[in-house]
Amino acid sequence: MDIRACLFDVFGTVVDWRTSVSRDLAGFAKQKGIGGIDWLEFAVEWRKLYQPSMDEVRSGRRAFTILDVLHRESLDKLISRYRIKGLSEADIDHMNRVWHRLDPWPDVVSGLTRLKKKLVIAPCSNGNIALMVNLAKRAGLPWDCILGAETARAYKPMPDAYLNSCKQLSLAPASVMMVAAHNNDLKAAKAQGLKTAFVARPSEHGPGQTTDLAPDPTCVDIAPKDFVELAAKLGC
Amino acid sequence: MDIRACLFDVFGTVVDWRTSVSRDLAGFAKQKGIGGIDWLEFAVEWRKLYQPSMDEVRSGRRAFTILDVLHRESLDKLISRYRIKGLSEADIDHMNRVWHRLDPWPDVVSGLTRLKKKLVIAPCSNGNIALMVNLAKRAGLPWDCILGAETARAYKPMPDAYLNSCKQLSLAPASVMMVAAHNNDLKAAKAQGLKTAFVARPSEHGPGQTTDLAPDPTCVDIAPKDFVELAAKLGC
Repeated sequence: MDIRACLFDVFGTVVDWRTSVSRDLAGFAKQKGIGGIDWLEFAVEWRKLYQPSMDEVRSGRRAFTILDVLHRESLDKLISRYRIKGLSEADIDHMNRVWHRLDPWPDVVSGLTRLKKKLVIAPCSNGNIALMVNLAKRAGLPWDCILGAETARAYKPMPDAYLNSCKQLSLAPASVMMVAAHNNDLKAAKAQGLKTAFVARPSEHGPGQTTDLAPDPTCVDIAPKDFVELAAKLGC
Repeated sequence: MDIRACLFDVFGTVVDWRTSVSRDLAGFAKQKGIGGIDWLEFAVEWRKLYQPSMDEVRSGRRAFTILDVLHRESLDKLISRYRIKGLSEADIDHMNRVWHRLDPWPDVVSGLTRLKKKLVIAPCSNGNIALMVNLAKRAGLPWDCILGAETARAYKPMPDAYLNSCKQLSLAPASVMMVAAHNNDLKAAKAQGLKTAFVARPSEHGPGQTTDLAPDPTCVDIAPKDFVELAAKLGC
């Protein structure tokens, strides 16, 4: 394999969104005097609205809309459903930007730093540019550039999300490796000719996780245990 | 001024294209046994075709086309005009990618490194994403992301080049500073509400340079002598 660039899924693969969102919002709620809410459940419910909100765009029913806006619409629904009162516009915006404040898994920064020495590294996430920039600055992710839904004008797993990202790097899909903790992401990337690496994140969905515990051999080229092993496997 | 991000012009402001292009091509020509060409003149002639090639896109006569393609079309014209013979497709592609191999001015890396600690830093260049990524990796430019013509789908000095870049960072133009060695770039940015910094690069065009030796006070907010002084002026 002659790999020149690695593209990374972010939510779940690079960062632990469930723990980060729930911990951040619980702290904010305490500060605001909002009680009685299970913030782990709230984070999971928010994430459940993620795919349906993007489906509106994928289907063509809605013009391309960045994830910050979709996240905000979903958050407004949840604030109403959980009957949370007394939040200002600035409060809700701060809550929405919790997706800009996610913590990486422990192997991520050292793995990316090694990979960057030899390869181009970029997110290929459904998160928008500002979200990815803020997240990377806070977490110290050394991306070479930010690619993904907003630059490709397509949400994964639509083919253009992968193909436009390769094109923007002026690389053939076969010399680009998609890295994800989700087999469906890798299946879609593989279908467009990219190479694929599966990195298991068995606690992304909490202790009872049943999905994506192992790579799907029909679409996965390599399955390193973490980003450091990925760097080693790619000769970095 | 509450500046949250700095956007940078690249050709001339961040990198010394004239010296880099001519030196690189002279070395390549020697290796290939091509003699009798003044490569400094060749670099300048190539650059002269830069604005006219983008004008086709700016005017709407041509669909958005990345700079690597425009550079290649201009290079093909020059190879014919200079009657250079015997180059393979790989040779011409290598020559075209000389714009991916430009050296920064001496203050750039240390200035950007300081700025990055407090602010978002990104190019806002007419160069395409792959060009900017390769240039940054080789030169060690620590961008937070790559913005510019390809992400904005507009060539500077068109308003969308600046406005879409601010939008992609989710920042108001007034909290973004455009940094350039060219007053016309800053004039266009200022017209869209961005703050502006002029950094003189008095040898960009060689020893006889007559343009852009001083900031135009009608469109320039600050005029630090280099990127290190820019960082200091912005409190970084």
